[in-house]
Amino acid sequence: MQSEVLSYLESNKDRYLSEVKDFLAIQSVSSQTIHNADIRRCAEWTAGQMRTIGMNNVRIMDTAGHPVVYSEWLGAPGKPTILLYGHYDVQPVDPINLWTSPPFEGTVRDGNLYARGSSDDKGQVFIHLKAVEACMKSIGSLPINIKMLIEGEEEVGSANLDKFVNEQKDLLKADLVVISDSSMFAKGVPSVCYGLRGLAYMEVELTGPNSDLHSGSFGGSVHNPIQALSEMIASLHDKDGKITVKGFYDDVRTLTKAERNAYKKLPWSDKKYAKQLGLKQLYGEKGFTTLERLWARPTLECNGIWGGYTGEGAKTVLPAKVSAKISMRLVPDQSSAKAAKLFEQHMKRIAPKTVSIKVTALHGGEPAITPINSPGVQAAVVALEKGFGKKPLYQREGGSIPIVVQFKNILGLDTVLLGFGLPDENAHAPNEFINLDNFFGGMRTCVHFYDELPNFWRSSKKSRNK
Amino acid sequence: MQSEVLSYLESNKDRYLSEVKDFLAIQSVSSQTIHNADIRRCAEWTAGQMRTIGMNNVRIMDTAGHPVVYSEWLGAPGKPTILLYGHYDVQPVDPINLWTSPPFEGTVRDGNLYARGSSDDKGQVFIHLKAVEACMKSIGSLPINIKMLIEGEEEVGSANLDKFVNEQKDLLKADLVVISDSSMFAKGVPSVCYGLRGLAYMEVELTGPNSDLHSGSFGGSVHNPIQALSEMIASLHDKDGKITVKGFYDDVRTLTKAERNAYKKLPWSDKKYAKQLGLKQLYGEKGFTTLERLWARPTLECNGIWGGYTGEGAKTVLPAKVSAKISMRLVPDQSSAKAAKLFEQHMKRIAPKTVSIKVTALHGGEPAITPINSPGVQAAVVALEKGFGKKPLYQREGGSIPIVVQFKNILGLDTVLLGFGLPDENAHAPNEFINLDNFFGGMRTCVHFYDELPNFWRSSKKSRNK
Repeated sequence: MQSEVLSYLESNKDRYLSEVKDFLAIQSVSSQTIHNADIRRCAEWTAGQMRTIGMNNVRIMDTAGHPVVYSEWLGAPGKPTILLYGHYDVQPVDPINLWTSPPFEGTVRDGNLYARGSSDDKGQVFIHLKAVEACMKSIGSLPINIKMLIEGEEEVGSANLDKFVNEQKDLLKADLVVISDSSMFAKGVPSVCYGLRGLAYMEVELTGPNSDLHSGSFGGSVHNPIQALSEMIASLHDKDGKITVKGFYDDVRTLTKAERNAYKKLPWSDKKYAKQLGLKQLYGEKGFTTLERLWARPTLECNGIWGGYTGEGAKTVLPAKVSAKISMRLVPDQSSAKAAKLFEQHMKRIAPKTVSIKVTALHGGEPAITPINSPGVQAAVVALEKGFGKKPLYQREGGSIPIVVQFKNILGLDTVLLGFGLPDENAHAPNEFINLDNFFGGMRTCVHFYDELPNFWRSSKKSRNK
Repeated sequence: MQSEVLSYLESNKDRYLSEVKDFLAIQSVSSQTIHNADIRRCAEWTAGQMRTIGMNNVRIMDTAGHPVVYSEWLGAPGKPTILLYGHYDVQPVDPINLWTSPPFEGTVRDGNLYARGSSDDKGQVFIHLKAVEACMKSIGSLPINIKMLIEGEEEVGSANLDKFVNEQKDLLKADLVVISDSSMFAKGVPSVCYGLRGLAYMEVELTGPNSDLHSGSFGGSVHNPIQALSEMIASLHDKDGKITVKGFYDDVRTLTKAERNAYKKLPWSDKKYAKQLGLKQLYGEKGFTTLERLWARPTLECNGIWGGYTGEGAKTVLPAKVSAKISMRLVPDQSSAKAAKLFEQHMKRIAPKTVSIKVTALHGGEPAITPINSPGVQAAVVALEKGFGKKPLYQREGGSIPIVVQFKNILGLDTVLLGFGLPDENAHAPNEFINLDNFFGGMRTCVHFYDELPNFWRSSKKSRNK
């Protein structure tokens, strides 16, 4: 049975590559209202695919923002039901001039498929669609029940998903959430991810004088807002790279000795990593290794800054305003709302009297950790080994999937993070790509995962019934 | 004779207002190549005006950049010849949304004429054009000889003017330079300006990683370039507001006791000034009054900063690059080239190893001081008193007119700075305007100045011949 499914996958690779390019061609940038029609078109494309591969009850469900695409296949009574979550929206593409090939034109180079969304997350949603197709078209059924929930607002904080999940509790009833929206540890090193960082994303605006001023006529009398904001930003890290926001570390869960030891055994080289990023020197909180800092320590990053004259040539202006987008990555047991509050209070406290300050919380999400010994994680480990021919490692991920916490809170479900991306695939940056070995290996892994899950579920149920 | 000229001025005010709006409507933004045709059109408009008012030898003279408009009237043999310098180019208008009325549509509100260039410097060039017209059309001649040199690159550093002046030494031969491109002390307080600050305008670019990164997946391992630049900018001023660039103050000329005392007698209120700018608190170098800091102390300002995501919503990017435009205002006896060099060396010295840095000098100009007892300055004092009915004060100006130093170096000429602007007229900012009392008072003053100059010149010549 397995071999039929796998050979179906094998013999349809070219078509899959061509189909995923259609998916990637749709400019579903959720943060830019100009792309609202593209978002709708992308939801329709996704729904069309679901119908084609044999999913039932396919629906485009409206929210106050972008729609959710839902479908289900419930033909395996007595078997576990997974709720597959993914997103069809993508990040903006600017700076567009840094892309080697057009961001919405899937292009294969050196065994990678380049396009916005190829890795985050359209490519990984597509992996599941085709794993399901392979089962349905070759043997006519799936070994488990599947519900799919593919949303269109992940890149803008999933503002309407909580409400949706709350309202659709019955529809979404399942045994386990599966998300493929993260990375494996490295090329050729499959891994299962058991932890995610949270996020609190802020915008800060400083206003100095009530109008842009001539820097000659006024320079020397006014605290330049760019200078003032620079002084504030500079003070947010101390000389050891620790964040100075008052109370910020209070709820940070200490890394266990076991975790620190496990991370030390992972194949990792700071030197190689720095070289890959084009850096002479890494940076971060003193007293922690790079992996610890990336996975288990909170951070504060400036995501953007703008103020004054930024065009061609020289304009001698002393600007009235400057703004910055600043976000914090959070780890258990920090809370996004609390971090946002602490940040706002801190910034208002340190803002000099020479300026006025406005702090806005743009969006947030909670950090999460999934139990390693849960049946879903254990089935994933076996499936990854079969799909990639190599025993996977356990890892955490520096990014955020806030919905993981919400699925736990609202539906009571654990999440298995079955990521097929790679850490260097430029998610959120120009030249995003997915590695094609992982793209097709991911499809094989999903087929095995659907197949393995009932076994672990049974043994887990049994052991629970003892 | 005087009264005929002045009544001509008086009876033509409406027409002047309408004509200056035509001048202001031309989008002669010299820093933006998209406006090259507008620049040319503005030069032609200026030349046309010169012909209309009776100037001779009117020429649009090409340079490697934007053209210079030249004309002369030499019908007063034995009388002094002034070289009137001004510029017909203007600053960019962004942020355009902060303009109350369109920047290229001259609009009168509350006794002020609003438009880009109304004060800096088209409006002030126009004042001279109409003062000359009034003389020529009412009495058929001028009491002095005038050469006009109106350039199109002042707002981008007058890069081609040195060469032009050097090549046209004979054509530009004169006794005195007159420039109306600065402000009087305050509304109703006419003043003559004897000092200008210089400028060194730099651009700094920091590069961290070789590509924009996902701030979740990479945050905690990389020194964010925005953070790094903020740290560098923050360190450029110490807690006393002094600039930390090594060697920066070495050549600064100390304020004389007489100057400090004179400034203290000027009608000035820090409180009013702060209120006018919408500030709770002023800022600047400790140990100096506001006027001292504005006129006689060097400064360092951030004119612009940009990096990372600056669009709508939230993008979780750890940017590869960040840039800033940073300029220094210089006072005698600092040199622009030296300040630029010191800044570059300093920035390269303090840049952390986690980033690479590029420093570019965009343009510069030297500081200048004009002798108060020169015949031109003394004629200006009398003319201002007659034009505005009030004895003028002596002041300096925080802005820069680098060409003043070049006229001294190349042509051996002193400059009289006969400014009719006001300090709050938003030169270089949205909602630039010129006060109409000063606009017409400026015309009267120019008529008196042309009339008075020969008297002072004679007495000065006499006293020199003693």
